[in-house]
Amino acid sequence: MVEARLLQELIENEIRLQSGRWELTSPVNLYRPVSYSLNEGGKRLRPLLVLMAYQLFGDNPREALKAALAIEVFHNFTLLHDDIMDKADIRRNRPSVHVQFGENSAILSGDVMAFIAYHFLLESHTDRMVEIMQLFTRTAREICEGQQLDMDFESRNDVTTKEYLEMIRLKTAVLLACSLRTGGMLGGCDDAAARILYEAGIHLGLAFQLQDDLLDTFGDESAFGKKIGGDIVSNKKTFLLTEALQKGNARQKKELLSWLGKESFNRDDKIKAIKNIFEDLKIKELTEEKISLYNICGIGILDSLPVERERKEPLAGLFRNLISRKV
Amino acid sequence: MVEARLLQELIENEIRLQSGRWELTSPVNLYRPVSYSLNEGGKRLRPLLVLMAYQLFGDNPREALKAALAIEVFHNFTLLHDDIMDKADIRRNRPSVHVQFGENSAILSGDVMAFIAYHFLLESHTDRMVEIMQLFTRTAREICEGQQLDMDFESRNDVTTKEYLEMIRLKTAVLLACSLRTGGMLGGCDDAAARILYEAGIHLGLAFQLQDDLLDTFGDESAFGKKIGGDIVSNKKTFLLTEALQKGNARQKKELLSWLGKESFNRDDKIKAIKNIFEDLKIKELTEEKISLYNICGIGILDSLPVERERKEPLAGLFRNLISRKV
Repeated sequence: MVEARLLQELIENEIRLQSGRWELTSPVNLYRPVSYSLNEGGKRLRPLLVLMAYQLFGDNPREALKAALAIEVFHNFTLLHDDIMDKADIRRNRPSVHVQFGENSAILSGDVMAFIAYHFLLESHTDRMVEIMQLFTRTAREICEGQQLDMDFESRNDVTTKEYLEMIRLKTAVLLACSLRTGGMLGGCDDAAARILYEAGIHLGLAFQLQDDLLDTFGDESAFGKKIGGDIVSNKKTFLLTEALQKGNARQKKELLSWLGKESFNRDDKIKAIKNIFEDLKIKELTEEKISLYNICGIGILDSLPVERERKEPLAGLFRNLISRKV
Repeated sequence: MVEARLLQELIENEIRLQSGRWELTSPVNLYRPVSYSLNEGGKRLRPLLVLMAYQLFGDNPREALKAALAIEVFHNFTLLHDDIMDKADIRRNRPSVHVQFGENSAILSGDVMAFIAYHFLLESHTDRMVEIMQLFTRTAREICEGQQLDMDFESRNDVTTKEYLEMIRLKTAVLLACSLRTGGMLGGCDDAAARILYEAGIHLGLAFQLQDDLLDTFGDESAFGKKIGGDIVSNKKTFLLTEALQKGNARQKKELLSWLGKESFNRDDKIKAIKNIFEDLKIKELTEEKISLYNICGIGILDSLPVERERKEPLAGLFRNLISRKV
């Protein structure tokens, strides 16, 4: 079995290779933003999940490398378009694609990345290609639905935690689940195992996104690499906020809603006031508990796979690491 | 064999059925623009090509209906995104999607349409699905490349006719070619026939786009349904313009370039002046000749298919009709 560190190297090398090609592919105005976007870095979590899930069943992770790349390219496509829609001008400490190359480039280069993702997926050697394509296509649609719900939530203050969890299932969790399932299928797992991997991925994804929410408000600013409180400032309907609105007493709820309604305010005041309410309601502990639950559940589901323990350990380790992360 | 008129009905019914569904699908802000876009009308040329190519070989065109729908949805996805990039606020006499629903909707609903297209394509029953997916994916990438070249040409005045033809091959012709090839494959044609259909489609597509260029400048305004001269006003690098810049003498070329460089001008003056040069250079006749050549070529290629004459006739008729169209 190839260890995680080497899988990561494999992924980075493949991305570097492909980026180098796109850098030189014509029309350059189409492909240069693709290269820029892929070179931005990032955790490369999704391709790693593909390769690790592959290794539960298969012995040559290179067989899943093109699929891993496909999913990373797809993920970056969603970032390009989301950043336009969310007017997010910075991504991983650099100007977002639409700032660096213009909005039209971010739209069109984003589009081509979606098709490049299909292209790489189709380069995998497997007799279950149609099934993989169906899964990928359903996942892509669901991610669009999740992004739409996220945008719909912006103008609402009555989003429930249940609605929020469904939104992050669609926007974030299904792609992690798709990564695991695709990797497993390329490794040769059966249908039951494929479903198990998918479910484990959903739980991992929910835990992962809640951890993101938590870090945005309670993270260590220096480790996190960006200012904390962004979600609070922009009224983002996170798990923390939906829970606080649900659990708060009349006074707390009124104060929260009053902050949500303010057009102009002092950034630090707003963060401090809302964090105070979160602290009074023990939202941090509640969120950590929820993350831990999803994570334990995900690891448990993973553990139910009829595969030798040592093959499962690296993936279980990744699950554990992801929720103890500080960034 | 089902006649063309009935194939068109089949297509319209299927689109109406699906649009009705999307109208009610949640999240509504994601799927309502999809329904709006599909209901805008249009020639439904691409799905018709799928079904007609299918009928060269197969006897139940319903077998190709989902693929036909897929390609029409895909085509509309490209219109959504192109209209944002080109700032085209009107499409088929109605506000474009980004005007009607906002730009974010046009981006995201466009994205989901690309994946809906894959979804419908994957619903076809065929043992050549992977090949069809590869063709479709390559086509999608090429269309993005064509759109990029089209945008790149906006800021250039030295676009050659050869470059222009390559741009419209990518932006327009490959999807017509893909439609014919996909239909034929679903009908059960062999690889040689598939390649023939593709080539015929490329020629049809080039003729089709040149006809579009011609109508935009020399069309009958009342029949065309929109003001003529739009391409001239916006300095679009059409076949007419690239040819005129190439064939014109020093004075004509200078006048053309001077109009291209003007920031403010009287719309009618510009159209009249440039049309005058086109007329002096017999650009209209030259374009008609070129269209006719591509068309004859396309029909000839089609005719080389080892299929009974009566099966080929409807498609050949469509080829002929398309270039005599006034709108």
